[in-house]
Amino acid sequence: MSTATAAPKIVTAAVLVIGNEILSGRTKDANLNYIATGLTEIGVRLMEARVVPDIEVRIVAAVNELRAAYDHVFTTGGIGPTHDDITSECVAKAFGVKLIKDPKAAALLLTHYGEANLTEARLRMAHVPEGAELIDNPVSIAPGFRMGNVYVMAGVPAICQAMFDGIKGGLARGDKVLSKTVSGYIGEGVIAKDLGALQQRYPALDIGSYPFFRQGKFGASFVIRGTDEEAIGKAAAELRAIIRTLGADPIEGEPVA
Amino acid sequence: MSTATAAPKIVTAAVLVIGNEILSGRTKDANLNYIATGLTEIGVRLMEARVVPDIEVRIVAAVNELRAAYDHVFTTGGIGPTHDDITSECVAKAFGVKLIKDPKAAALLLTHYGEANLTEARLRMAHVPEGAELIDNPVSIAPGFRMGNVYVMAGVPAICQAMFDGIKGGLARGDKVLSKTVSGYIGEGVIAKDLGALQQRYPALDIGSYPFFRQGKFGASFVIRGTDEEAIGKAAAELRAIIRTLGADPIEGEPVA
Repeated sequence: MSTATAAPKIVTAAVLVIGNEILSGRTKDANLNYIATGLTEIGVRLMEARVVPDIEVRIVAAVNELRAAYDHVFTTGGIGPTHDDITSECVAKAFGVKLIKDPKAAALLLTHYGEANLTEARLRMAHVPEGAELIDNPVSIAPGFRMGNVYVMAGVPAICQAMFDGIKGGLARGDKVLSKTVSGYIGEGVIAKDLGALQQRYPALDIGSYPFFRQGKFGASFVIRGTDEEAIGKAAAELRAIIRTLGADPIEGEPVA
Repeated sequence: MSTATAAPKIVTAAVLVIGNEILSGRTKDANLNYIATGLTEIGVRLMEARVVPDIEVRIVAAVNELRAAYDHVFTTGGIGPTHDDITSECVAKAFGVKLIKDPKAAALLLTHYGEANLTEARLRMAHVPEGAELIDNPVSIAPGFRMGNVYVMAGVPAICQAMFDGIKGGLARGDKVLSKTVSGYIGEGVIAKDLGALQQRYPALDIGSYPFFRQGKFGASFVIRGTDEEAIGKAAAELRAIIRTLGADPIEGEPVA
């Protein structure tokens, strides 16, 4: 269908959300979508996300499964000073290394808190797996760290997002997944057959259909994703024609709410 | 510490969110927190959540891992009429059964759409794994289904949540995990040592610490969770005393924003 092109360079990632509070419903995760959006922007494909409780064996297993399966792993949560913050120990165990006090992290905390307020608990936040590199925390100083391909970040959204922004620029990345959205006030069940045929004509693209209900009417947004901009443009043109043939007006992007 | 009591009855669950749109960042998941909160209310412990893309091998593997590990599994997404809706086929494959047209589901769709509008694509939504039971969809008719311990629900939040509300009452459940929250404008690093000691004195409880920044001040909410209401009350009283000893006022619940 489209002219032969080189296979896209694919770099993958997973997110591991660590925290009982997400699983109990107390807290709504606010980091996954931020990280997902940021990774898509730079050409990293988020292939999986997991939420696990503050249980050592579960965290260690998840870290080891995900770091073996994906190029990058981003963890959120569990690096504060309290007893329920066990992520750093767990990552050390997952890598089979010791947890050590990082002198640079300890110095940062000493400067920030002063000697009188640098409690033993706060000094826990200077401990990282042996061989880790610090991740800058511009919000509240206590750093995250990178160990191998695992990036360990805080759970508090403002801190997590600042840490992620700091490391994003340095991440290995692949070809960007571009996307084009065309919408229409048309039932998914009406367009499904033609949409499926369009997907078959463009096997290298990924066409998703997302229904909505707006202004009292059902419709759907169709998202065409892939690395070949020209092919996306062609598929979008065909999609607009399909929508028109079925009696609706194609809308570029998402309809205005 | 506390008097010996019978081991709590524990019933576990996992949530499997299926959809490229969550992983690309296009869509923010809005179902996990709803399901998590509902499960906590009725005495089911959500122990894991995963997000996987619309890829058959990934969905089948996740369904099989999760249904083996937990009492209940709730999936969201991928049961609409378009080509990217592959959850039902994947669940059938995971269970090693055929995907069949359910006569009751087909009749519901026929009544809803009428014969002229019941496209082949819409009829796809009447297909379920052999042996499945339908889950009612009061919003848009096309049903979800239960297969073994796997509850397959729509991804559209209004539909997912209505389906979940419908099945919640009939779920096997364990002892409720009760919780009490006490907060204080106190640094986590200041209270951490005493909080850790409190956790050690109440090993059957689960004490979490969640920092916040409000009204220009740092503080934290401490959540005590467990099945023994009396023990929770005692631990909360000790916690209030700790907060006072450290010079702050204990606040019941979360502080008003």
